[in-house]
Amino acid sequence: MSPNPPLFASDRRSSSSHSEERAAAEDTALLGNQRKDNSSPQQKSRFWREIGLFAWALIATAAVIVLAVYSQHQGSSGDGKKTSPKGKKNLIFMVSDGMGPASLSMTRSFRQFQSGLPIDDVLVLDQHFIGSSRTRSSNSLVTDSAAGATAFSCGMKSYNGAISKLPDHSSCGTVLEAAKRAGYMTGLVVTTSITDATPACFASHVDTRAEEDLIAQQEVGEHPLGRMVDLIFGGGRCHFLPNTTSESCRGDGRDITKLAREKYGWNYIDNRKDFDGIRSGSAVKLPLLGLFARYNFPYELDRRNMNDIYPSLDEMARTALNALEAATQDSDKGFFLMIEGSRIDHAGHGNDPAAQVNEVLAYDKAFASVLEFLDRSKTESVLVSTSDHETGGLSIARQLDPTYPEYLWYPEVLNNVSSTAEHSARRLASYVAAGSKNVESFIRKELVKKGLGIKDATDAEIKTIIAAPNSYSFASMISRRAQIGWSTHGHSAVDVNIYGTAGSERLNGNHENTEVGKFLRDYLDLNVDAITKELNEKEKAKSASTEETIRPLVEMHSMPDGIDDEL
Amino acid sequence: MSPNPPLFASDRRSSSSHSEERAAAEDTALLGNQRKDNSSPQQKSRFWREIGLFAWALIATAAVIVLAVYSQHQGSSGDGKKTSPKGKKNLIFMVSDGMGPASLSMTRSFRQFQSGLPIDDVLVLDQHFIGSSRTRSSNSLVTDSAAGATAFSCGMKSYNGAISKLPDHSSCGTVLEAAKRAGYMTGLVVTTSITDATPACFASHVDTRAEEDLIAQQEVGEHPLGRMVDLIFGGGRCHFLPNTTSESCRGDGRDITKLAREKYGWNYIDNRKDFDGIRSGSAVKLPLLGLFARYNFPYELDRRNMNDIYPSLDEMARTALNALEAATQDSDKGFFLMIEGSRIDHAGHGNDPAAQVNEVLAYDKAFASVLEFLDRSKTESVLVSTSDHETGGLSIARQLDPTYPEYLWYPEVLNNVSSTAEHSARRLASYVAAGSKNVESFIRKELVKKGLGIKDATDAEIKTIIAAPNSYSFASMISRRAQIGWSTHGHSAVDVNIYGTAGSERLNGNHENTEVGKFLRDYLDLNVDAITKELNEKEKAKSASTEETIRPLVEMHSMPDGIDDEL
Repeated sequence: MSPNPPLFASDRRSSSSHSEERAAAEDTALLGNQRKDNSSPQQKSRFWREIGLFAWALIATAAVIVLAVYSQHQGSSGDGKKTSPKGKKNLIFMVSDGMGPASLSMTRSFRQFQSGLPIDDVLVLDQHFIGSSRTRSSNSLVTDSAAGATAFSCGMKSYNGAISKLPDHSSCGTVLEAAKRAGYMTGLVVTTSITDATPACFASHVDTRAEEDLIAQQEVGEHPLGRMVDLIFGGGRCHFLPNTTSESCRGDGRDITKLAREKYGWNYIDNRKDFDGIRSGSAVKLPLLGLFARYNFPYELDRRNMNDIYPSLDEMARTALNALEAATQDSDKGFFLMIEGSRIDHAGHGNDPAAQVNEVLAYDKAFASVLEFLDRSKTESVLVSTSDHETGGLSIARQLDPTYPEYLWYPEVLNNVSSTAEHSARRLASYVAAGSKNVESFIRKELVKKGLGIKDATDAEIKTIIAAPNSYSFASMISRRAQIGWSTHGHSAVDVNIYGTAGSERLNGNHENTEVGKFLRDYLDLNVDAITKELNEKEKAKSASTEETIRPLVEMHSMPDGIDDEL
Repeated sequence: MSPNPPLFASDRRSSSSHSEERAAAEDTALLGNQRKDNSSPQQKSRFWREIGLFAWALIATAAVIVLAVYSQHQGSSGDGKKTSPKGKKNLIFMVSDGMGPASLSMTRSFRQFQSGLPIDDVLVLDQHFIGSSRTRSSNSLVTDSAAGATAFSCGMKSYNGAISKLPDHSSCGTVLEAAKRAGYMTGLVVTTSITDATPACFASHVDTRAEEDLIAQQEVGEHPLGRMVDLIFGGGRCHFLPNTTSESCRGDGRDITKLAREKYGWNYIDNRKDFDGIRSGSAVKLPLLGLFARYNFPYELDRRNMNDIYPSLDEMARTALNALEAATQDSDKGFFLMIEGSRIDHAGHGNDPAAQVNEVLAYDKAFASVLEFLDRSKTESVLVSTSDHETGGLSIARQLDPTYPEYLWYPEVLNNVSSTAEHSARRLASYVAAGSKNVESFIRKELVKKGLGIKDATDAEIKTIIAAPNSYSFASMISRRAQIGWSTHGHSAVDVNIYGTAGSERLNGNHENTEVGKFLRDYLDLNVDAITKELNEKEKAKSASTEETIRPLVEMHSMPDGIDDEL
């Protein structure tokens, strides 16, 4: 079935642009000769026969060229060539933090139940499933989000806790930094603190993820390479505010929002009203720092009741796409945007299946919006989505007693929940803190019956909540009734899914997470190694002038207990 | 980049075979005319110019045809055309019963640890990962193996327990039956009872999987369509032997091995020596019924110490491939072979991670052997491998106490195990049944320390074993130390992986399990609907002549407790 090579080769030669010029010259010469003749009818028919033959040959040759190019183009998909085409490009990288394979099955069936959809109805993500990613870090079979995101940002394995640092504690250049240097616009959109591990890894370099104050500084521009990010939407405002203010969680008195505005030229917004203001489009001026929550955004299940305070992931994603598209309108480079569904992970840590299905649906919606953007964009673009790891050891089955289990689970239990376990625990804490009476009745009626939608709570369960008034006690009631299993409040080692659009075929199949990172840089044709070299030189120069101590490696996770972002 | 349609279209027209005939006629006419002329030098140069032009046009047109066909061929991969090429074909379908996504990560890291391999070393399966399968059945979000295998065999969703029966209890034709009817040779290779749900679904039709006696009869030929299978390797001999013999588990006195031999022409073997005899190749005579275990084969971890009794999955797979290849040597049809790694599922039911990693490795080895066969076979062939469901709610992480868990698990614990939990429980039962003394010491030294490789057993754990001397008590000691989590002894709803070789591109991405079944029939270009029609007509005729009662639907799983297959 392969083309006959000699034929093909000779035709390719004769169809070069140079040959076409020659053919055109021959054409003119031929016509010229004819004009000089006093042609007989036979000669005339010969003339037209030659013209006909020539036209046939020319058309066939043109078809060969077109087909050869077309065939070449088809054949190149998947072999990497398509990942570095010439010209302007946008790359959107989405991270579903903590979403393992079981989350998809759970969310899909939940959505079918909730919306009365047929059993073969699928998520938008499902329609773009292309592969899976192996997630272990350099020092553990189970990664954290920092090592996970370093694999994406630097394309290298590192230790748990590393924020774009390698095992030898040298910095590694990131895809975002290299993109910025190459002339792309860059953005980060998350629903947790913008100083949390995943976004941090794209725009900062610290030994351990706990150094969030330093990460905040680097993200706005106090970074070895200067300001690298053009657009930030997320939470974590507290790390940007001086510890002289009530909202702060910084260790010092520096005002990073002021630093960002005054030294690095950022436009800073911190509320829903200002966010709505920029969404119209024309009002967007980059760089733009939007910090809409003190720590995390509320879970989507709770946020929908606080829509006047917090924008959704989907709204932020669409706004970021519009802003970056407008900003690169007259550029020959496009943009790199990282969008994280940050709190799928938190719902896993909290073992709350109702919170999780709604986080995954919010992520699916944002994914669909990126697809819509790709459809209407005139710039060549690719969307790749994957997770850094699984969280919670989620299983869509749970045996509640020694009797051999029935094969089922109950999505209706999740559908009855209107308030997450986290929100329930916070409401309880507020209620108790306010010195209100009848705590047990408040738990039973307001939190469990109304909030969780559970009407058959046992006395033992209510007592458990009173004894341990945290989110786990509420979440457990939901999971047991839905027959959803969890094996940990931490992370697990299962491979996670990769989703992608046309142009991401190199990621089909099973891959090391670092291969996802390498795809990102290759798609934008970036020289990340040059960034690494520059970072290392600058850090050497700096360490020669100042004495630095390596901070201890502390295993961290981003679930500040009892801290309330909500009003 | 797309071809210019008018150009392309006009050239396609001129390159049709009809046009070529016309062109050839024109060619003759042209040469004929030339011969009649007394040509001048100018005329001669014109003649050669015309010949040149004509040759150019012809060559270019030929190139268009070649390229168009090539391009069409390239473009067609994945849209189904490539799955039904003409000519002789083999289809090997492998089922990793109960293997979910987490099993892969666990087994891969175990193997790396055991063999000192680098962290990016992968399984053979990993290299052929192409998609995932959604597993729910018609009546539950969590399928059993019967409904799961019916989705593969019939390409239809049915109820849990259904053996190639639809929700209305009518039979659905299977890919194996349609293949046999179309002239293919057929085979089933498993490590559990050949009457268990997965193999049963390919060659029998009963309302519920518990009807294993009936399944045995149908499998050898007492089937509405006659004998459909040419080769069977597996366990479950007890359902073929009359209840007058000690090995039997039949409800009646029929000898199905005798029925098979005498009425349906089967060659019957039931031991390792006879199996080794046929492996040489020339001695294979189909149909061949090989039943090498009374119920299940031992787990691979135990079987390696009983290699003189039980062949391995890999040995059976290779022997079956050779036998079916030889038998179809002179046929214009190839074969359909189903190979099941049956006991991955049992290790999940038993929550025994050490048993499971070794079952998955045995499956991976058999998969690799099929690939080798494909490489050397001259017949066009495809291998597709998937699971019917996940078992156990396996998670590669386990939190053992309320302290926030470290991110790790311990493959070395699995590597220390030399005897499965199932085998340990059986040894204990035999020891006690023999009236031996010092049971506690036997448990502590022989079973736990030597067998499980656990040197730090607590008194409480030994007491648990004495109180509940079953496999679960042993398995739990392994899982807890390895920090491997389980949520059930039953099945779960997570999507399972699909693996495939070239030609199975239609299964790239996320699919309903029935789409896997539809791929199988389409690849072999089979008319399964005609089989369904025939089955339904024969069943109607039969039910008109005999009164039948619908048996109750009983949820079953194939883990007969305390039944010992070993000597």
